Amino acid sequence: MRQGKGESPCNKTTEGIAWLSFEGRETGTSGQTPDNLTGRWGMQGTFYIVGVGPGDPQLMTLKAAKILENCNVWFVPSAFENGGSMALKIASGVVSREGKTILSHRFPMKQVHRGELPDPEIKNAWQEAAKIIMSSLADGEDVVFPTLGDPAIYSTGFYVCETLQEYGSPFKVEIIPGVSAIGASSAAAAVPLCLGDERLVVIPATFEDERIRELLELSDVIVFMKVHKVMERLVGLLEDLGLADNAVLVERCSLDDERIWTDVRQAVGQDIHYFSTMVVRKNRCA
Amino acid sequence: MRQGKGESPCNKTTEGIAWLSFEGRETGTSGQTPDNLTGRWGMQGTFYIVGVGPGDPQLMTLKAAKILENCNVWFVPSAFENGGSMALKIASGVVSREGKTILSHRFPMKQVHRGELPDPEIKNAWQEAAKIIMSSLADGEDVVFPTLGDPAIYSTGFYVCETLQEYGSPFKVEIIPGVSAIGASSAAAAVPLCLGDERLVVIPATFEDERIRELLELSDVIVFMKVHKVMERLVGLLEDLGLADNAVLVERCSLDDERIWTDVRQAVGQDIHYFSTMVVRKNRCA
Repeated sequence: MRQGKGESPCNKTTEGIAWLSFEGRETGTSGQTPDNLTGRWGMQGTFYIVGVGPGDPQLMTLKAAKILENCNVWFVPSAFENGGSMALKIASGVVSREGKTILSHRFPMKQVHRGELPDPEIKNAWQEAAKIIMSSLADGEDVVFPTLGDPAIYSTGFYVCETLQEYGSPFKVEIIPGVSAIGASSAAAAVPLCLGDERLVVIPATFEDERIRELLELSDVIVFMKVHKVMERLVGLLEDLGLADNAVLVERCSLDDERIWTDVRQAVGQDIHYFSTMVVRKNRCA
Repeated sequence: MRQGKGESPCNKTTEGIAWLSFEGRETGTSGQTPDNLTGRWGMQGTFYIVGVGPGDPQLMTLKAAKILENCNVWFVPSAFENGGSMALKIASGVVSREGKTILSHRFPMKQVHRGELPDPEIKNAWQEAAKIIMSSLADGEDVVFPTLGDPAIYSTGFYVCETLQEYGSPFKVEIIPGVSAIGASSAAAAVPLCLGDERLVVIPATFEDERIRELLELSDVIVFMKVHKVMERLVGLLEDLGLADNAVLVERCSLDDERIWTDVRQAVGQDIHYFSTMVVRKNRCA
């Protein structure tokens, strides 16, 4: 158990990644910095994974802005927007990038299936990223990795941490939560995700129909991510289940060209952007 | 479909609450302001439901801070912290409350079951809140309702909107998403909620064991809310399922006295705070 801010040098700044190191971690001492690392940590920089929100720079947190301001090295993922980085665009919408070292790194937009080995191209991108970051940290530089939305939700940041961890290099990491595309889509469409004792499910829409049906059965609200390529199949399934009228699709949430589809049938056959989230609420009201 | 910011006066500022008005809403015109309301809206204030994040004022968004700054009337829910308002504490950690009209309102901490009529005491609190807010809006004042975490997740804000809507009074509402306790707990514990093609479930821990078992079967990560009163039962269930070691409990996330329990068994029998979230990740790593 870790207790109290400031009590331990690694409170909030974890020693590696907890979800990976649960197994070897001894209960009761997990919050303490191992003695043999204290010295090295003093010299090394900190790796910050910072959620910059869904798109509108004003949806960044005060803390995210402060960390971006204070870090000289920005490690930015690029994949979207013609090779540009959406995360960089959001970050620099609030904090000037002048004087910053911008390390841009391309992560392939390929699906990762947990429990299976990742595509070598993806693995390679994580390893390259880890090397670049490690080198800056070793120089005593803090490195910030701005990531779209909330790092908790389908962010590359955790993979990069996992890879850094695989290299066996101890490092300080701090994760700053952000506004998720899910919460922002709910706000934009004015459709609450959980009320009272409701059950919420978040899944990629690419799952097979049978799994989606099972989860719809057991939940009150379901959020579909990664819907843009499977709209026809998904809307067909919702029609079968009598739920098409309960769905709302939010495209490019919080950006200038945000679109809200209150009739998801109309979105079928359209060129739906990658940044799209669908919320299906079974109970419309009390 | 609503398209493009600024195209319609009610883009982002919805005409009432979409999830309530889906039924009567005509597709294709849903984004347009009904002609007969345009005039009245011009005079009325706007009701802002603003997520202020999980506790650390620095986890507020820039937009939340700006709206709090610009609104003269703050309508703050109180229930926690000895009658004080946690949301007010967070908001005023960044924006001065000087010169603001603070309307404090007590919402009873009783469970609402969707699909059932709420407890009269709760319903009464919503109605009282709606009346007070409506009165300020009618005076042309903008009213901000700061709410803990993200308004999408178990916030009273939506109930108050629903009640305003029941009174038949048209009003402008804007919902500003915030950092959720869920995302913040994930960050604090460094446990990702979704990776690759994983399925996430969020439920109140008060659900019966059988439902929890079913959902655990179908999901990869499960987040339990409202765990403080049912820790013993919940941890027992996780032990039965061989998942107790995959759980982490975050108490008072992002606050000065935040506690992270990496062995949830140790939390059984302890006085766990209401602001607690448990994350259970079935697959620890790739």
